[in-house]
Amino acid sequence: MTDQTFTARLDDARQQVEARLDALLGPAPLAGETARPPTLMAAIRHGVLNGGKRFRPFLVIESTRLFDGPQEAALRVAAALECVHCYSLIHDDLPAMDDDDLRRGRPTVHKAFDEAGAILAGDSLLTLAFDIIADDATGLEPAARLKLVSALARAAGVGGMVGGQALDLAAEKSPPDEAGIVTLQAMKTGALIRFAAEAGAIIAGAGDNERARLHRYGAVVGLAFQLADDLLDLTADSKTMGKATGKDAGRGKGTLVALHGIEWAENRLGELVNEAATLLSPFGAKAETLVEAAGFVAQRKN
Amino acid sequence: MTDQTFTARLDDARQQVEARLDALLGPAPLAGETARPPTLMAAIRHGVLNGGKRFRPFLVIESTRLFDGPQEAALRVAAALECVHCYSLIHDDLPAMDDDDLRRGRPTVHKAFDEAGAILAGDSLLTLAFDIIADDATGLEPAARLKLVSALARAAGVGGMVGGQALDLAAEKSPPDEAGIVTLQAMKTGALIRFAAEAGAIIAGAGDNERARLHRYGAVVGLAFQLADDLLDLTADSKTMGKATGKDAGRGKGTLVALHGIEWAENRLGELVNEAATLLSPFGAKAETLVEAAGFVAQRKN
Repeated sequence: MTDQTFTARLDDARQQVEARLDALLGPAPLAGETARPPTLMAAIRHGVLNGGKRFRPFLVIESTRLFDGPQEAALRVAAALECVHCYSLIHDDLPAMDDDDLRRGRPTVHKAFDEAGAILAGDSLLTLAFDIIADDATGLEPAARLKLVSALARAAGVGGMVGGQALDLAAEKSPPDEAGIVTLQAMKTGALIRFAAEAGAIIAGAGDNERARLHRYGAVVGLAFQLADDLLDLTADSKTMGKATGKDAGRGKGTLVALHGIEWAENRLGELVNEAATLLSPFGAKAETLVEAAGFVAQRKN
Repeated sequence: MTDQTFTARLDDARQQVEARLDALLGPAPLAGETARPPTLMAAIRHGVLNGGKRFRPFLVIESTRLFDGPQEAALRVAAALECVHCYSLIHDDLPAMDDDDLRRGRPTVHKAFDEAGAILAGDSLLTLAFDIIADDATGLEPAARLKLVSALARAAGVGGMVGGQALDLAAEKSPPDEAGIVTLQAMKTGALIRFAAEAGAIIAGAGDNERARLHRYGAVVGLAFQLADDLLDLTADSKTMGKATGKDAGRGKGTLVALHGIEWAENRLGELVNEAATLLSPFGAKAETLVEAAGFVAQRKN
């Protein structure tokens, strides 16, 4: 399902986003900043420029393209979203949280630097994300930039990603039921992916119905992403994943795969890919890449 | 210098801001949020509703009043800024950073809950701050809200408060020279206070010159705040402060008081209070409370 064109597009987006992140995480302070401490900047760059797939940024760029929205704004929002994603990984890897020493085959930020550096690098990236979107250089009308700030804050904060991480840690002590797992995953993994898909509609000034449709598409992709992740956690080895695997099951965390089995999960992934295609069918051939993205997520091997 | 009217105003602002924070940190998820996990919300509320003086919010409210700006917007921005201040305290208190068990006479968030809860409570509050400002309920034109988001991000992030905390931790290992101390303090303590003073000008749509003047006033108040803090750290006992004292000196951190002595510091505080009054003299009697605020900061005993 993932043809050469799709892979090339994904790789092109990755390169563009990484070049932009590299520029945004430069040494020179911006107007209103006093200085950018070099060691902290190095910790930030270690946590961001680390070989990620940049799937969330890709969704921002492609969902913007779907509505013929401005690609410069898409690139900035994509970079901002990746800052949020990377901050969450840096904090989640801390000893007090998931306690991971490896991320994509390299030492995590608190191992390469120290715990304080990792906490502050994460804090910096979260703050910078809102700076990047709000900046005039984003080129969108103020009202659109504000919508993006609001939507990102709600996706990332206590009612979204951060809250999901809190639920995930609590799940180690007291395993949630199926509804609890669904809520946890919708927050921890789903919220940023929904934002990524929805962002294009906001950037391009699409109507509320179109925004809601992209939001639903993002929800479906988020479910597929998490299900594939849970499958990989059971089946892949740590070399393929570049991080510790089998941890969720080992810690007694419930997943839908654990509840319903591998065959169910593989069938469900197929359904979700079909659902993504149906949701985007009104956009015709223009949505081809986003439909393929759902298939890519469902079939990924790392 | 701090008369009854001033104390009453400070107390009135404190009460208003706390009522607003209480409401903003409620249990019900907002539109776009999935759920607000109760334990995480409790950790957040422990870190925010803790008897602080709310001096930064007070500056936002009074600087807005100086320009006859909308008080509802001031209150929301004040609450957002206090979320950022409280998040920074929660993270700074962590074992990997300043390792403090007490804050205002109560257990710090990581003692009352756990380290993961404290990290996530801080992350939530930082995110929420931008949400609060960006929200339509703030009632300002989108362009003004965006300016506030940008200014807060630059004050709080790697080039401001967070960067200052990184420099402060580094100072324990390698004491900075006087210029280094000034930069560190301008970032760690100064940046949010400058934002607080400047915010009123942005909220009220004042001109660039007036905004710059309030920014300079904020810088002077920030210097006085830090100098008074360093004096208190040398002279007060931990009961008065409600937190561990003498730590900065004990850890070998340089302060301007350590470099130049107590008498110099007390003289310098007097100069800074005069400087604040001179900066605000064009506003006449309307600036009385803000002038008194500089005196209050310089003379505070806890």
